Amino acid sequence: MSTTVPEYFQGFGVDKAENWNKPKLVSYKGKAVGDNDVVLKNIACGLCGSDILTASGQWSPLLRDDLVVGHEIIGHVIAVGKNVTQVKIGQRCGIGAHSSSCMSDSCGRCSTDNEQYCKINGVGTYNAVDATDKYVTQGGYSSHSVAHEQFVFPIPDELETSHAAPLMCAGLTVFSPLVRNIGRDAKGKTVGIIGIGGLGHLAIQFAHALGANVIAFSRSSSKKDQAVTMGASTFIATGEEKDWTTTYDDKFDFILNCASGTDLDLDSYLSVLKVDAKFVSAGLPPSADKYSVSPFSFVKNAGNFGSSLLGSKVEALEMLKIAAEHGVKPWVEEIPISEANCNTALTRCNDGDVRYRFVFTEFDKAFK
Amino acid sequence: MSTTVPEYFQGFGVDKAENWNKPKLVSYKGKAVGDNDVVLKNIACGLCGSDILTASGQWSPLLRDDLVVGHEIIGHVIAVGKNVTQVKIGQRCGIGAHSSSCMSDSCGRCSTDNEQYCKINGVGTYNAVDATDKYVTQGGYSSHSVAHEQFVFPIPDELETSHAAPLMCAGLTVFSPLVRNIGRDAKGKTVGIIGIGGLGHLAIQFAHALGANVIAFSRSSSKKDQAVTMGASTFIATGEEKDWTTTYDDKFDFILNCASGTDLDLDSYLSVLKVDAKFVSAGLPPSADKYSVSPFSFVKNAGNFGSSLLGSKVEALEMLKIAAEHGVKPWVEEIPISEANCNTALTRCNDGDVRYRFVFTEFDKAFK
Repeated sequence: MSTTVPEYFQGFGVDKAENWNKPKLVSYKGKAVGDNDVVLKNIACGLCGSDILTASGQWSPLLRDDLVVGHEIIGHVIAVGKNVTQVKIGQRCGIGAHSSSCMSDSCGRCSTDNEQYCKINGVGTYNAVDATDKYVTQGGYSSHSVAHEQFVFPIPDELETSHAAPLMCAGLTVFSPLVRNIGRDAKGKTVGIIGIGGLGHLAIQFAHALGANVIAFSRSSSKKDQAVTMGASTFIATGEEKDWTTTYDDKFDFILNCASGTDLDLDSYLSVLKVDAKFVSAGLPPSADKYSVSPFSFVKNAGNFGSSLLGSKVEALEMLKIAAEHGVKPWVEEIPISEANCNTALTRCNDGDVRYRFVFTEFDKAFK
Repeated sequence: MSTTVPEYFQGFGVDKAENWNKPKLVSYKGKAVGDNDVVLKNIACGLCGSDILTASGQWSPLLRDDLVVGHEIIGHVIAVGKNVTQVKIGQRCGIGAHSSSCMSDSCGRCSTDNEQYCKINGVGTYNAVDATDKYVTQGGYSSHSVAHEQFVFPIPDELETSHAAPLMCAGLTVFSPLVRNIGRDAKGKTVGIIGIGGLGHLAIQFAHALGANVIAFSRSSSKKDQAVTMGASTFIATGEEKDWTTTYDDKFDFILNCASGTDLDLDSYLSVLKVDAKFVSAGLPPSADKYSVSPFSFVKNAGNFGSSLLGSKVEALEMLKIAAEHGVKPWVEEIPISEANCNTALTRCNDGDVRYRFVFTEFDKAFK
């Protein structure tokens, strides 16, 4: 292991939920580096909607008073634990929304390329407690990040850093349910993508890259041209085309919901699925919100309603390869990281004022 | 086509919803026999919970004032349309909850062995309008039944009539989601069956016959011995074992809900599924009832919540074969059909006072 890892890291932290959009520059003790861990010196971090939902306490209470969020992290490897074999010092890598899991052979999930679903010691990249050392994790609006190598993904040279960052969470979150439900060769399959935002704009591109016929849904037609540019063959403005369910009845092999609210017309979406097909919600609303569904909504086609969480390392590496080969690119607005810009970006993202992802940059200027 | 079909049929019909358990002997014009239709002279009919939900108007309004319910029908073929090839005069056959569909090559469902999901002209066995002749269908508490040959299933000689009847709806309703989700060789798979009643007692037997490890769920332990007799390896009384979700975490490849209420603890059942597995509700509650679910209930395992409707003819024939080979037998209480016994059986079934299916018999005495 290299010895260049500072004992204290720097980051932009939130002291309490009401200050969710006012992170301050803080210094905190870094996570101890385990034998399977990788340390990144961060160079960029995307702003995910989860950052807002977590910092504002909508998912769970804040577990520390200097909470640093951010889980679309890109950095360079500066140190590795003695058992690390998959990455090298100097390599440009990314970390997504999970940073560790038990990785035991006896874990039904870690042993089957489902480590993101580990229940034994799945550790979120921020505001989570690692059972092994009780450390409360800190995210990527920071100078350094530490993660188990299973959760550290080498970035192909073809991908720019600011494009790679949003793939770490938003990209993987949509790619995993897509490949699990339409496969690697989705030619002849029709996929619906609901919501054109941070998740949806990547879902359209990845579904198109996998070969599917992509139908994009949005409430209004304001994003129609953009959706077509991303790869959608058809655009449905559900607020304007009232009888779309008749036209598209029995057409969908899969629908991926990328909107985060629970106020969508679930019955309509379920009704247009083919027999035995799925509607999966990748977007997560505040934890108290619930969908209201009747078995009658599904019964005419044996439809299914489900969810999905991130993706495995196998899927992450595959996603990065496909992104590099097919030119899948997040639409980003770069913004140098600072207290003022954290405030600006968090506030604007919360207002829906970004097309479609903020990426914090210029970390070397913020962290001395 | 034979000429033995009477113009008028007899049956026990309900005039309005409040008289759901007081059917009276009525005479009504039979459905015209189409070229693909089969006419049965009925000899038995199971009592399904759907009969009560329909006759009492809990699913939809009554479409006629002499409504005859019943869709677990067994009878002998007395006439066939000129295009019928799959059954013969004299053969003992059954009809389930659907009696016709469009069966067009251009129907995405009828052309793929999903005719039970036909949206073009799927016709329920009772209280449904056949688009081709506007006839409002009548069920099997009656002297005769008419159905498209696709919905008429020859009964293997090994099966007694009173055992075959409940397989037409209850059996097929559980068999189809089982084979679609655990396959024909389910060895090594763990299946949960919720609710030990008309559906559940058959689901346990079929899941066991398919080779699965079956875990039965009920609120109390009163049916434990029965569930084990049916083939369950394990019985969980959810009202008595509060921490069962911990013990059975990550164990289930599939869970089939055979209870008809929406008041079950959906979050607990979803939490014990393996990654990407499904919870399917075969039981249908009153149409106004809804489940309340959060995406957070599914997100820890990419779980799915879905429904299912009956099964295809292919599945029906397969189910009957397996029932004959493995000795799957509904637990029935035979009761001669009459006004008084319709009242008794409907009332007792509604009160949960049957182990586990009433089958009306002695049709020749009731219908002259």
